[in-house]
Amino acid sequence: MRTSGGTTWVRPPRKEATVAATKETPRKIILDLDTGIDDTLALSYVLASPEAELIGITGTYGNVVVEQGVANDLNLLAMYGRDDIPVFKGIDHPSTTDSFSVPADSEIFHGANGTGNIEIPAHSDRKAQEESSVDFIIESVRRYPKEELAIVPTGALTTIAAALEKAPDIVDKIRIVLMGGSLTQPGNVGPFAEANINQDPEAANKVFATTADITMVGLDVTTQVQMSREDTESLRGTGTAIGRFLADMTDYYINITEQEEGVFLGGCNLHDPLAAAVAIDPSLVTTFATNLMVETEGPQRARTIGDPNRLTDKTKNTKVALSVDAERFTSQFMERLMSLATGQTTER
Amino acid sequence: MRTSGGTTWVRPPRKEATVAATKETPRKIILDLDTGIDDTLALSYVLASPEAELIGITGTYGNVVVEQGVANDLNLLAMYGRDDIPVFKGIDHPSTTDSFSVPADSEIFHGANGTGNIEIPAHSDRKAQEESSVDFIIESVRRYPKEELAIVPTGALTTIAAALEKAPDIVDKIRIVLMGGSLTQPGNVGPFAEANINQDPEAANKVFATTADITMVGLDVTTQVQMSREDTESLRGTGTAIGRFLADMTDYYINITEQEEGVFLGGCNLHDPLAAAVAIDPSLVTTFATNLMVETEGPQRARTIGDPNRLTDKTKNTKVALSVDAERFTSQFMERLMSLATGQTTER
Repeated sequence: MRTSGGTTWVRPPRKEATVAATKETPRKIILDLDTGIDDTLALSYVLASPEAELIGITGTYGNVVVEQGVANDLNLLAMYGRDDIPVFKGIDHPSTTDSFSVPADSEIFHGANGTGNIEIPAHSDRKAQEESSVDFIIESVRRYPKEELAIVPTGALTTIAAALEKAPDIVDKIRIVLMGGSLTQPGNVGPFAEANINQDPEAANKVFATTADITMVGLDVTTQVQMSREDTESLRGTGTAIGRFLADMTDYYINITEQEEGVFLGGCNLHDPLAAAVAIDPSLVTTFATNLMVETEGPQRARTIGDPNRLTDKTKNTKVALSVDAERFTSQFMERLMSLATGQTTER
Repeated sequence: MRTSGGTTWVRPPRKEATVAATKETPRKIILDLDTGIDDTLALSYVLASPEAELIGITGTYGNVVVEQGVANDLNLLAMYGRDDIPVFKGIDHPSTTDSFSVPADSEIFHGANGTGNIEIPAHSDRKAQEESSVDFIIESVRRYPKEELAIVPTGALTTIAAALEKAPDIVDKIRIVLMGGSLTQPGNVGPFAEANINQDPEAANKVFATTADITMVGLDVTTQVQMSREDTESLRGTGTAIGRFLADMTDYYINITEQEEGVFLGGCNLHDPLAAAVAIDPSLVTTFATNLMVETEGPQRARTIGDPNRLTDKTKNTKVALSVDAERFTSQFMERLMSLATGQTTER
């Protein structure tokens, strides 16, 4: 609270951009993908959502290198008959290093090609746009009101951090709904770290340290939503090339999850799709408003945790998803994937 | 959800014991203290609360050894003219060791005598009861309905774990409101560990692993409530022995906090008093229902974190306090301490 001229000045509440989008007022979405099996599922979900309008894909590194991710994005869009959607190339390595190579774990979980070593049944001759991801994000945020647009990073936060650094004016206009981090559960690449944040903890810390409107969809909730072999059987049962591709790719993910995690989840986690779904309909999760930091030193490197120095600040810029309506999300997710596989929503 | 005879069986909701106590229906409280400066403040707060009836103090180790803590409890009760309240001796060392000596940090923060090297202005000739803390807790839980009694541990959870182990039948009847742990903020004895949990992580893990009704009042919220030098001046200004004692003791705590933490909080944190206050009036905090574990190995030893194996369980036994009405609590806290210092509520 600031005081001025003897009277108490209270900051007016920010216009909340957290209502669900509708068919009549669809939410514009930019997916920042490292495509990736669950990235592919997230992209599919957004394309099949009548309340969403995908205005562009920005490619980042993580599950795959940027070049592979962008090639996957272009082929997936061709598969869905959506060559109208532009794809941009993002920064191809962490903010603190000169280069990037795919971690062994990522290749194990997503296959060498990012889609579980299953070939995407379409080939695009399109190239990524000349414009960079960073510039496309900056321009889009400047163009659209905050309640109309959400940026959905599902990989490293390098590109988002670079956009905020290059154009500090967008900080009050940007709405970020990210897959990453873990606040109330252990990490998935060690006891503390979640894989996306772990790719570039310094960039993530810079993003969380801003006043940007962030919704963190992390392991707290994404490990509560699964896709099962029964689901992949349904997709395969459509008999279409898309249905078979989605089924085979996801079966790879389910198999590797069971093999590597040593637990039977009854399927695979829907990390990235849940973040995309929350960007469209925030009511799928309940959130806790706080100010986070990302630790960058010691064994806790990449841990997302409350920032004690901003604990009692009146303004909390991050909403951390802590619980999820898993049943509503997963049934909606499968309905939409089935409609894609049967070809009912590939046209808008 | 279990199914039986073709119909769906839904577990009936448990009777919630989380409504605020009133003067007419006071909540019975057992304080499990390692007395301790903020333990002393918690004890004072409970004695000054018309909605609370302190039915006993059980002494544990932590800030001080058990003998010192029990002696402090007896002298404090004498100071407040409350020799009617029984004091019990608890287990004097962690569940995994044979003995306990006060950690250097605890002695620094609480002084060699537990009350900031300030002498309690009363001396009791009473002794602790013959009955053990463990048995007193078991009997009390068996005697009173859950909504009438809360056990408030403000130190190690050794005694509580022992009671649950000795009398497994009390698990569905006990209501625990503990000061300890940290879920969304770093620890205070390292990046992960909070001091009370750190005294006996194994015992704490056993308690969290049960189905007992637990409210965790940890660093997430206790670092948001402070007592200032202005507050201690008010207490000193009463001119009474009690007022001077509380002021001098708390000034020690404020000084050492500033010196050791290297930050200016504008006072000291009210860790234990907040837990006691939440036991009486749960509406002071908002909570997140989950199932926790305490890590016992590696650098994360003593970290309180969500248990991935119980993440999707329908039953969540722990309510973690994540936000607090700091203004309401601290003003009520000071009102009640002032009434004690001026002698207005030492008689019931």
